Amino acid sequence: MNYFLAAATGDHTRVLLTLFIMLVAAKLMAELFERLRQPAVAGEILAGVIIGPSLLGWAAPSEITNILAEIGVIFLLFTVGLETKPTAIFKVGKQAGLVAVLGVVTPFLGGWLLMKGWGATGIEALFVGTAMVATSVGITARVLSGMGLLDAPTARIILGAAVIDDILGLLVLSIVSSMAAGTVNYLEILTTAGLAIGFTAFVALVGAPVVTRMAPRVERLGNGQGIFIFGLVLCLGLSVVAGYIGVAAIIGAFLAGMALAEAAEDNPKMHRQMSGVTEFLVPFFLVNIGMQLRLDVFRSSSVIVLCLLVTLVAVVTKLLGCGAGALNLGKRRAAQVGMGMVPRGEVGIIVAQIGLSLAVIGAELYGVVLFMAVATTVIAPPFLKLLYASEVAAREEIGPPDAGGIVASEDLCKIG
Amino acid sequence: MNYFLAAATGDHTRVLLTLFIMLVAAKLMAELFERLRQPAVAGEILAGVIIGPSLLGWAAPSEITNILAEIGVIFLLFTVGLETKPTAIFKVGKQAGLVAVLGVVTPFLGGWLLMKGWGATGIEALFVGTAMVATSVGITARVLSGMGLLDAPTARIILGAAVIDDILGLLVLSIVSSMAAGTVNYLEILTTAGLAIGFTAFVALVGAPVVTRMAPRVERLGNGQGIFIFGLVLCLGLSVVAGYIGVAAIIGAFLAGMALAEAAEDNPKMHRQMSGVTEFLVPFFLVNIGMQLRLDVFRSSSVIVLCLLVTLVAVVTKLLGCGAGALNLGKRRAAQVGMGMVPRGEVGIIVAQIGLSLAVIGAELYGVVLFMAVATTVIAPPFLKLLYASEVAAREEIGPPDAGGIVASEDLCKIG
Repeated sequence: MNYFLAAATGDHTRVLLTLFIMLVAAKLMAELFERLRQPAVAGEILAGVIIGPSLLGWAAPSEITNILAEIGVIFLLFTVGLETKPTAIFKVGKQAGLVAVLGVVTPFLGGWLLMKGWGATGIEALFVGTAMVATSVGITARVLSGMGLLDAPTARIILGAAVIDDILGLLVLSIVSSMAAGTVNYLEILTTAGLAIGFTAFVALVGAPVVTRMAPRVERLGNGQGIFIFGLVLCLGLSVVAGYIGVAAIIGAFLAGMALAEAAEDNPKMHRQMSGVTEFLVPFFLVNIGMQLRLDVFRSSSVIVLCLLVTLVAVVTKLLGCGAGALNLGKRRAAQVGMGMVPRGEVGIIVAQIGLSLAVIGAELYGVVLFMAVATTVIAPPFLKLLYASEVAAREEIGPPDAGGIVASEDLCKIG
Repeated sequence: MNYFLAAATGDHTRVLLTLFIMLVAAKLMAELFERLRQPAVAGEILAGVIIGPSLLGWAAPSEITNILAEIGVIFLLFTVGLETKPTAIFKVGKQAGLVAVLGVVTPFLGGWLLMKGWGATGIEALFVGTAMVATSVGITARVLSGMGLLDAPTARIILGAAVIDDILGLLVLSIVSSMAAGTVNYLEILTTAGLAIGFTAFVALVGAPVVTRMAPRVERLGNGQGIFIFGLVLCLGLSVVAGYIGVAAIIGAFLAGMALAEAAEDNPKMHRQMSGVTEFLVPFFLVNIGMQLRLDVFRSSSVIVLCLLVTLVAVVTKLLGCGAGALNLGKRRAAQVGMGMVPRGEVGIIVAQIGLSLAVIGAELYGVVLFMAVATTVIAPPFLKLLYASEVAAREEIGPPDAGGIVASEDLCKIG
């Protein structure tokens, strides 16, 4: 090969090959899992495990895949936010707040106690407890939207509680991380907490109404796709703001989507374009997660026992904690809320990754937390379908919701 | 800021901030240029110049922006390919071949002679000649599609000739680059040429019909968005193949689009999703180009004179060379074809970038070639509109084409 060709093909072609392998593996496993009626998300993570260094070694995490994964998870949370109207959250605010707080305290204590009992160090126990805290809005939203139930009262409570949960979870994470670094600066933690809460309140109370009012004028810009372009800009912009405030970028992306939820509601074109972006980018996030798993940690039987115990505690504590917060709605609805909060998905995994990067947890505990996050994600959907069966039956009698809603939820279905 | 926050926000937030600035600048300048009835592409390149190290210094090219730019240009060429049906190219193959060959030889000689006369070194003259060779399919396709004239006979000749042009141009580039490295290996050049031609012929003759026949079955996969996902996979896949064969990745992406053109023809949903991907990623390509320009080279009056001379020669040689190849169609149509081949756009810029990375041309000549590529891109569209005025008038009498075509070309309009 001559000089130019070597120069031109070398690095970039190899990067493109990695991305190609990741995309193909993700889409194949997603298709397989959907045919087996399992969440596509789990299939795409498994795709990463298979092609990653642990098994085939066809691809490995790198700076490039990490950035694409970050952009992917940002747009994933943005599209979840797009389905979350702030007005709908406000209506269930008090109830959602109670569910969220109980859904943070119970799993954290459960995870911490279990790990202490297992003989882990204090900081390891705190990290596993933290990983138990967050709820993956994505999975439950995807299941509910697939059933056309995103506007059911308990669905709103779940989504609202999951948002509050994420914010609380990230606060817990910042506290635990600073403990891991050997110092706890209460003033900084308070500042971060204040900024995070203020940021969320500002976007929900001021940002969303302003965006909704501006929307018709924005839509005319950019050759009539102004809302889509504005969405891209707002999503990246609030992610950056969140990063500088000290909360995770995904919180900013979620809030950006929420601010645009009303404006984009009757805009199937915008949802379609956004689904193009997420279909392309989200697989890099999920596959990258799987590629970071070291399979050999599961050779030890004690690790496998710990995986099962942690998963059991993760399911039970969310179910009981969140269910208790919604008990006033009746047992069946409390069970719906509890089960809806079980999937840990991406946020639990993000905690694990930060723990790994801080060298606070090792490859074994990373594997355990990843197992828990994936297992809770796989376990919840079938139970959710059962618990919502009578609502689905009632819906089918009165007919499906309007066409705009169908397009939106159809798109959401395919996010993972 | 505590340890965790610093760890979590540091690098990734800064990368996201760069991407945010690039995206906002691109979209603002695109909007401004469209209001001034100028090509959005030129506005987005200018956005890069403004925010880049040359002026404001808000963003700079990096490994990450380079990769995103590469993915962006790949999907840009893919969507251009989507509008190019191979059967339509075959019909004009002979004529397009003649136009392409004359459109390669004349500008190359013109550029080489000009630079030799200017006193440049032999290798510099060869590089400028090479940068003159390629035609940017994107710009002309965008203008023609905006007028609903992508199926006009001269439009097909232009698109066909531009494709052949690109392949010939990349062969010239590989020869000139190997000369720059001090060795010319004729066997390798012949091998690359054979592989490139064989690859193109295989995709057009075998790939496209197979894909068209498979399409209905593919569409049912991936929750009914099988064609879109297949498009993503094929686009990355053939880009990688092209890279390994030794032609530019963009050629593979273009061919992938062409193979899918018939299958995606009546699929506005797929076009919409793909436009989401290009709207997000193409700006990174265009802004990245502008960010690499060093403005201070234009302080020298001799550089400015050279810019104007090179641009003049670039316009005249394409107009005469390509026009001569289409003279049998009558003068007006020959002028349409000649003007349609004038924009150098991305491909001329890619040549400049390779020259810069090989240290064969310096910052000044890079600036000159970039100026030529942008100037030819800005100059051509208004003339094209004039030259096609009577076709547009005739179209308006018989009414617009069918709805599917409208959606597709509407999307294409917004690529840049």
